Amino acid sequence: MPRTRVHSMLMSVDGFAAGNHVTVQEPIGGAEALASWYDGRVIHGIQALSDSAEPITADRALFSLWGQGIGAEIMGRRKFGPQSGPWPEDGWRGWWGEDPPFRTPVFVLSHYPREPLHFANGTSFHFLDATAHQALQIAQQAAGGLDVRIGGGPSTVRQFLEADLIDFMHLVIVPLVLGTGVSLWDGIPGIQQRFTVESIGTSGGVTHQLWNRNRGD
Amino acid sequence: MPRTRVHSMLMSVDGFAAGNHVTVQEPIGGAEALASWYDGRVIHGIQALSDSAEPITADRALFSLWGQGIGAEIMGRRKFGPQSGPWPEDGWRGWWGEDPPFRTPVFVLSHYPREPLHFANGTSFHFLDATAHQALQIAQQAAGGLDVRIGGGPSTVRQFLEADLIDFMHLVIVPLVLGTGVSLWDGIPGIQQRFTVESIGTSGGVTHQLWNRNRGD
Repeated sequence: MPRTRVHSMLMSVDGFAAGNHVTVQEPIGGAEALASWYDGRVIHGIQALSDSAEPITADRALFSLWGQGIGAEIMGRRKFGPQSGPWPEDGWRGWWGEDPPFRTPVFVLSHYPREPLHFANGTSFHFLDATAHQALQIAQQAAGGLDVRIGGGPSTVRQFLEADLIDFMHLVIVPLVLGTGVSLWDGIPGIQQRFTVESIGTSGGVTHQLWNRNRGD
Repeated sequence: MPRTRVHSMLMSVDGFAAGNHVTVQEPIGGAEALASWYDGRVIHGIQALSDSAEPITADRALFSLWGQGIGAEIMGRRKFGPQSGPWPEDGWRGWWGEDPPFRTPVFVLSHYPREPLHFANGTSFHFLDATAHQALQIAQQAAGGLDVRIGGGPSTVRQFLEADLIDFMHLVIVPLVLGTGVSLWDGIPGIQQRFTVESIGTSGGVTHQLWNRNRGD
């Protein structure tokens, strides 16, 4: 059975995984400081560390799980762009330029319809007005037997947790106190009971948590 | 600059990474107990865990580094087979059957020449009577800009350490006392001074060590 997975979700020690107000200047809504603990270059493998002066660390090993065996992603609208309401005619094609990192179909949850976008590297964005269950079913078909990644942000991941659709989460708790923002954990007390959690501290100062859903739950 | 890497080298807490006598029945020479801490299925990625009842663990994340960005392997003769002396006409094609895990050129260090072997999945075995430096040069050419893995056994890795040719090692120290066998560390006291070592304990009971060579040494 394919999995539904969450990867490399960074959060502060007080539980915030994004800021409150996404703008073009602040894609993580004011929580940009989280990103300094992240190395997005290794998401398709550590071979991206072409400079051998950059060590192969446990942090990077865990970040490299992101792309392994993934056939599609589902993301919230705010991960795709800062707009709200009906889509403006602004030529927006996502934050990532013409080489988005996904290289698979990506399903963007939005109440507003829009034509899909296609990129030469295999990435495509499709816009869905759907529940978590419906979106996952569509993404699983597109994934062709591979796993589906729930790409965030935190409120999108929470929506899939509430629907009990997440099989695996890789969370990264960074030593940073944000004080405000969007928490993954709002309104889902006790959610840990559905999972077995492995915690690993690394020399980078972060704690990686691997949440694997208990079987039979 | 491509790296020369060692991956998933399991060793007992008393430092032994192989037993003394390799036979067809005992490919690790009596140290087979080491292998129970290993999951070889994930060496090309965690998508091999097709049964979602098997958790994605930190151990498996680290084992999945094995194939990332590797273009060739160098191995000692005992990793290829139990024979010694001139090659017998025994039809031996390695321990792995017709689907060897390597999927790249593999260079087997042997004083006895032999025709190369080719497999449909991209693996080929080439037999070299060469020093560590010479073998690495040949393997790097075959790797086409990707990294070269030194595949073991421990005495082969030690030979490359003595020649100061190793950039990265992933060692896995398992809670097992063997008492006898082949140690990686024989005759190279102080070798750790050339490396920065990160150690990670996991819930599996093992310690992973990531040895990254210091630059400028």
